[in-house]
Amino acid sequence: MTVATQSLDELCINSIRFLAIDAVEKANSGHPGLPMGAAPMAFVLWNRIMRFNPKNPQWINRDRFVLSAGHGCMLQYALLYLTGYDSVTIDDIKQFRQWGSRTPGHPENFETQGVEVTTGPLGQGIANAVGLAMAEAHLAAKFNKPDATLIDHYTYVILGDGCNMEGVSGEACSLGGHLGLGKLIALYDDNHISIDGNTEISFTEDVSKRFEAYGWHVQHVEDGNHDLGGIQKAIEAAKAVTDKPSFIKVTTTIGYGSPNKANTEGVHGAALGKDEIVATRSNLGWSHEPFVVPQDALDKFRKAIDDGAKAEADWNETWAKYQSQYPEAAAEFTAITSGKLAEGWEKVLPTYKPEDKTFATRKHSEITLNAIAPVVPQLVGGSADLAHSNLTLMKVSGNFQKGQYHNRNLRFGVREHGMGAICNGIALHNTGLIPYCATFLVFADYMRAPIRLSALSEAGVIYVMTHDSIALGEDGPTHQPVETIASLRAIPNLLVIRPADGNETSGAYKVAIENRHRPTLLALTRQNVPNLAGSSIEAVAKGAYIADDSEGTPDLLLLATGSEVGLCIDAAKKLREAGTKVRVVSMPCWELFEEQDEAYKESVIPKAVKKRLAVEAASSFGWCRYYGSEGAMISVDRFGVSAPGGLAMEKFGYTVDNVVAKAQDLLN
Amino acid sequence: MTVATQSLDELCINSIRFLAIDAVEKANSGHPGLPMGAAPMAFVLWNRIMRFNPKNPQWINRDRFVLSAGHGCMLQYALLYLTGYDSVTIDDIKQFRQWGSRTPGHPENFETQGVEVTTGPLGQGIANAVGLAMAEAHLAAKFNKPDATLIDHYTYVILGDGCNMEGVSGEACSLGGHLGLGKLIALYDDNHISIDGNTEISFTEDVSKRFEAYGWHVQHVEDGNHDLGGIQKAIEAAKAVTDKPSFIKVTTTIGYGSPNKANTEGVHGAALGKDEIVATRSNLGWSHEPFVVPQDALDKFRKAIDDGAKAEADWNETWAKYQSQYPEAAAEFTAITSGKLAEGWEKVLPTYKPEDKTFATRKHSEITLNAIAPVVPQLVGGSADLAHSNLTLMKVSGNFQKGQYHNRNLRFGVREHGMGAICNGIALHNTGLIPYCATFLVFADYMRAPIRLSALSEAGVIYVMTHDSIALGEDGPTHQPVETIASLRAIPNLLVIRPADGNETSGAYKVAIENRHRPTLLALTRQNVPNLAGSSIEAVAKGAYIADDSEGTPDLLLLATGSEVGLCIDAAKKLREAGTKVRVVSMPCWELFEEQDEAYKESVIPKAVKKRLAVEAASSFGWCRYYGSEGAMISVDRFGVSAPGGLAMEKFGYTVDNVVAKAQDLLN
Repeated sequence: MTVATQSLDELCINSIRFLAIDAVEKANSGHPGLPMGAAPMAFVLWNRIMRFNPKNPQWINRDRFVLSAGHGCMLQYALLYLTGYDSVTIDDIKQFRQWGSRTPGHPENFETQGVEVTTGPLGQGIANAVGLAMAEAHLAAKFNKPDATLIDHYTYVILGDGCNMEGVSGEACSLGGHLGLGKLIALYDDNHISIDGNTEISFTEDVSKRFEAYGWHVQHVEDGNHDLGGIQKAIEAAKAVTDKPSFIKVTTTIGYGSPNKANTEGVHGAALGKDEIVATRSNLGWSHEPFVVPQDALDKFRKAIDDGAKAEADWNETWAKYQSQYPEAAAEFTAITSGKLAEGWEKVLPTYKPEDKTFATRKHSEITLNAIAPVVPQLVGGSADLAHSNLTLMKVSGNFQKGQYHNRNLRFGVREHGMGAICNGIALHNTGLIPYCATFLVFADYMRAPIRLSALSEAGVIYVMTHDSIALGEDGPTHQPVETIASLRAIPNLLVIRPADGNETSGAYKVAIENRHRPTLLALTRQNVPNLAGSSIEAVAKGAYIADDSEGTPDLLLLATGSEVGLCIDAAKKLREAGTKVRVVSMPCWELFEEQDEAYKESVIPKAVKKRLAVEAASSFGWCRYYGSEGAMISVDRFGVSAPGGLAMEKFGYTVDNVVAKAQDLLN
Repeated sequence: MTVATQSLDELCINSIRFLAIDAVEKANSGHPGLPMGAAPMAFVLWNRIMRFNPKNPQWINRDRFVLSAGHGCMLQYALLYLTGYDSVTIDDIKQFRQWGSRTPGHPENFETQGVEVTTGPLGQGIANAVGLAMAEAHLAAKFNKPDATLIDHYTYVILGDGCNMEGVSGEACSLGGHLGLGKLIALYDDNHISIDGNTEISFTEDVSKRFEAYGWHVQHVEDGNHDLGGIQKAIEAAKAVTDKPSFIKVTTTIGYGSPNKANTEGVHGAALGKDEIVATRSNLGWSHEPFVVPQDALDKFRKAIDDGAKAEADWNETWAKYQSQYPEAAAEFTAITSGKLAEGWEKVLPTYKPEDKTFATRKHSEITLNAIAPVVPQLVGGSADLAHSNLTLMKVSGNFQKGQYHNRNLRFGVREHGMGAICNGIALHNTGLIPYCATFLVFADYMRAPIRLSALSEAGVIYVMTHDSIALGEDGPTHQPVETIASLRAIPNLLVIRPADGNETSGAYKVAIENRHRPTLLALTRQNVPNLAGSSIEAVAKGAYIADDSEGTPDLLLLATGSEVGLCIDAAKKLREAGTKVRVVSMPCWELFEEQDEAYKESVIPKAVKKRLAVEAASSFGWCRYYGSEGAMISVDRFGVSAPGGLAMEKFGYTVDNVVAKAQDLLN
């Protein structure tokens, strides 16, 4: 085949392929196989189907595209460049995988406009996409009027074998099917190859049948390498099915076009190499210089600019009419999608005095969530089947279900990993929605990957994690967090807050709601805690503060969080009776404390005061940073035990007497 | 219905129910619903089907039973008691969920003989069971002769809606179907209720169809409350299907027998309460005192003792014949199943001198694994589709596949979470098999739950995790571990080893192979590292050691692990040129170091030497414990970046010049 005989479509598709091939070759790193194989379906999607404005990657009603098989990101970068996004120039393509480039090794939403979510870890993208589709359905249900459609976009995914093997994708797709998300369309790059070779080595399930079982509409395009019409028909048929998400299995050849490496794992994740590139160019009739795209192909792709401008202009018209016809709804739409919180919203946060009724902080969380919910309409969320234990139902709304998408309570089922990834999708829909999700703190272990991705991709997801220590009692060591909080504190860009009482819980929610570009995780008790005299909402924002103090320079600092702050205050009373000057520092959030200036930090934890006893019903891992070389800690550095919670706390040393004794050891 | 008119079977089933009801009531904590609803199927399994010896819970050829819905553990404790295990007496039942009891809140294999694996976190048990069935198939294929069947047991699972929603179960069951594990039989307690209510709230997929898609044999027992014959028939039909695992959906009523709470979420996880117990007793015609089981029911259950003794006696006969007919195979069988390693096995561990060719530690791992594999035949394992990156294929064997179960290379597919749980099952098959599994270190996040369970349940799984830092380069921040190692060090009872070179890698494997009751995780480099002069296999067992030293008391300690040890040794050279006395301490394993006596620890890291610079291409979280109040660290406390690995290391400060500079800052 020569260049001359290629159709314009083929030229376009090969443009995608060779940008990927050339970029990976230049970087001597990357994954050319998927871009080469999925180029046809991606071309159909981006050139014939998707509605977006390359010059405005933030246009609110754009179709969302997620490359769940994130290693194939040269596919996406090529399309961003070809369709005219300013975020990816040809120089950016040439800088693929280099220091400081805008084309990193896996798609990063915070790095490259046009990339919606950060993928790479397999299975995350398709689960994010379920969240994107949920966000679309929610806003559409809330705001669309019979004569004015404000929110009306599709969410398209390209995913591969890897994503389909990952459990997180099954969780999210099962929920997506249950919810009947009709605007979610997933294209499965069915190439039978993964890193370890042909998928027959370990992956022989009937994927299409599984998706039917999930309640998806399922199709198969048999020749994904050539049948552009078939791909297009399938997508159109998928769009026509409005009450189910759609799964289109598109059978392709990985590394299509490479005579010797196509259909092998070798083309998955390594540059083709000089010789094979020559052979591929010859095979596909490509004679352009590296990184050069034939003008007519570029022009065809770039019609997206005019199409997108028109689509957005049409939308602006609709929006203008909507504002005049439905001013109240328009105001609410603006309020939510602007990302701004209502003026004075924080006034609803409950505060407590010591004499008030005591609750567990999970109960304070429920009260606070329900105080916030009416004034923060962008708040949506729920639990992984523990709503009655996490106490995370918003009374002001019903359940988000098929045909009930305007509701705000998300019922995730026992699917912690999927839940986290879905919430990342909701957050990164970038329409102001604030997602929260909940489970038992120990099951953060099931969802660590999306928690990390929230932190990395700057998604302000709120993680409400209850049953935070051995004090939860009888459920025993599989359920009792010990090292969980430490493991989460280690994650960069994640705020970990363990509030001590109702005031601190309110303060935690204030921080969480306000932080829209980093996630917050709340660790909450199962059991009641006292209301502290020295706590406040404002104090939480400083991360740590003096909860209780003697006059003058302290002899000893008691450093505590959560349920142990009250314990330390009681112990401090006793120590003072013996003449010791004790300061109790509540440290609900290490990360916020570290962000304070030196003067503040010194005022709370003076360097000169070396006798420090940390008290947290959790692992000591990491605490040396605060209790220092002359300090000590009452900690849990082993797994817990099945027993009533109060007894467990006692046996593990969380008693006034033991705090006093350990403090005295330090002082003597 | 009165007691008199209950069949003996019904008496037995109600005995199970009321032990559960009474134990939960007494503890005022626990989950009565599942035991009440699943009692019929469990009775059929334990009384009519399963082959086991209550007086020898370790009988090697026993059928394995896993309660994946671990919260229903009173079901299992009741059966252990009723069938005559010594590990659960009636007093143990009465101490359910109490301090020091042998009947903790979720089943714990390390606590209660007869419990095979630790469950509670949903989805783990069914995945463990896939591992148990794989172990059975492997040993059967290796050792069974046409005229002598040594290993021949079934693995039965009871799982619920929660397990079926969890992604980990889908991963494992997809693999189980691919492998055609015909001796795995799962009973799905289909009661349509989870904690948050009727499953229609979020879980409406066609579970049976999904399991058909996985390649399982699927059946449905419509009346799991009464149709004992139907349950039995289905299990027998399942056993007759030898080339597929079997899934039997058994429709039941949660909390069966409770007039007011049956079929509601209220009966899932809370004691029935006095009044409802009275009503349930009346409803089911039960008038025995709490914890009293009618003698004829007990007798019927206890026939398991004689049956079990006979089954084991028959097996002993078979074994005796086998030993005389097949002495070599018998010797190998004993060698593996005794849990003892071959005398002198460690002699095969490669050692290196500085002048030897350098490799990445992932490559050293491959060499070592392959040196070990022939002399440690009990070693089985593999990667989650990264065999060619993790370098974890054993050349001495083929792939473990349907009809090829004697092989040792396990091809898990892109299923990290399932892989970890499967390996726990293989380890806890307690037949001496040593499982290893592999992925990229950052994806430990996907499998943290089974890693934790390895540590809790004393399973000596070996986790081979490669690509251990920003040095992996272009794949970027989603793939570059930063906080991963810290998060893993925080887990109790887990050995985390980051070897610096080939000698340390050999040392790491020695530790890992020898530690059969706690897991070991290896963090390995993608990139080459030098062979150190001061490293050795023995040194790793001490956790930390002096890799390089000046004469006399050091002015400064450089504390490093893995790829940074060589860097520190180079920096030490420079510092010595300037007259500084420098000691380089390699700290491959913190946990092992902490187990050494004070004298050793002092000899390596003298308390009096306060100037300490820690150098690890990872988070500083937790390092303060070693570098102390006057120390510092070159660390990565933010997410990484997509760029070539060498450049990334340089930009993040991992250069000789920067180590020297930071050291001088400390000294001045």
